[in-house]
Amino acid sequence: MTLKIYGSPASKAFRPLWAAEEANIKYELVYVHPKDAAKNKDLRNVNPLGKIPALQDGDFCLTESLALTDYILRKYAPDYLPQSLEGQSDHLRWTLFGATEIEPVLIDYLHAKGIPFGDADPVKAEEKLAVLRPLFAFLDQNLTHGYLTEKRFTAADLNMASILTWVKIGKINLTSFPHLSHWLDLCFKRPAYLALREKLRA
Amino acid sequence: MTLKIYGSPASKAFRPLWAAEEANIKYELVYVHPKDAAKNKDLRNVNPLGKIPALQDGDFCLTESLALTDYILRKYAPDYLPQSLEGQSDHLRWTLFGATEIEPVLIDYLHAKGIPFGDADPVKAEEKLAVLRPLFAFLDQNLTHGYLTEKRFTAADLNMASILTWVKIGKINLTSFPHLSHWLDLCFKRPAYLALREKLRA
Repeated sequence: MTLKIYGSPASKAFRPLWAAEEANIKYELVYVHPKDAAKNKDLRNVNPLGKIPALQDGDFCLTESLALTDYILRKYAPDYLPQSLEGQSDHLRWTLFGATEIEPVLIDYLHAKGIPFGDADPVKAEEKLAVLRPLFAFLDQNLTHGYLTEKRFTAADLNMASILTWVKIGKINLTSFPHLSHWLDLCFKRPAYLALREKLRA
Repeated sequence: MTLKIYGSPASKAFRPLWAAEEANIKYELVYVHPKDAAKNKDLRNVNPLGKIPALQDGDFCLTESLALTDYILRKYAPDYLPQSLEGQSDHLRWTLFGATEIEPVLIDYLHAKGIPFGDADPVKAEEKLAVLRPLFAFLDQNLTHGYLTEKRFTAADLNMASILTWVKIGKINLTSFPHLSHWLDLCFKRPAYLALREKLRA
């Protein structure tokens, strides 16, 4: 049975889709628009909370976009997982740092910029950027060896870069954070990332 | 060199302290009050963002409370880590579910109850409880085998129960969620948990 990813590519489902491309596996994207998720019976069989993204691989069902990436890579391309003890805890640390400290502020920033719609609030946008800057500086310090852990692209980088696609959408200038900026460019130039973008455009 | 945990036991530093007790290791609690964290030089050497908790083990420094627990157990008591592929992704999934979906709402709920201080807002408290109930129901469904994964107490349970200490503080009634309620009781009756509470009272 083919692995199924439920969601829409413009949502956080992009994350497991990227992981599936990195792992170079066959998968099925079961299109569910976020608005229709709560009422979708097939999705609710996989995730009773009726939220996307969700994953089904045989009998195994999973939720949380950043855990779906982990599962796909762990099962089908385990070299993407950090191998050292420190690297494994770093993976969890950066995933949590991204999900709990960066992402909520980044989303508030986008809303304050009027993205995807709504009135812009420049004062609030600047406030949110002031919260983000030290977090970006911290990432920058931790990227002097090129990647977040083990000096190579791992599941930790995929998760963080997935979150930072919002940076690109919000056109946040990262020139003050050269290591972060360089690393994010490398992530977004990966063949699997570009192949996915190409597929989704088609 | 002894493993150091920076923070105050009434903060999220409780989480790695509990993990250290489960692992039965020697550790040093470097007391840092949340209010003083930003200015504490020793802490800033470990976490340049000046936030607690943070961990130092030899040259290795780590942040994010729920990653500290993972590191301590992974290094000093690896049996606490799920062993199966599914269990490992489940650990990440439940940790993210707790940290991003449950915890922010639970903290809003406590504030709306006037905890730790401030005016209570019963309408807002009820709204937050309405968001929490389906999340608790989902946990309840996933605890019919006793624990979150691998039918035994793992790092995933420690992380989730750490977050749900707020449930106890907020005196939220869990009788509608018998599996969740039973599981949380088991977690809070663990010898390591009780030993830590005893130490902190002393």
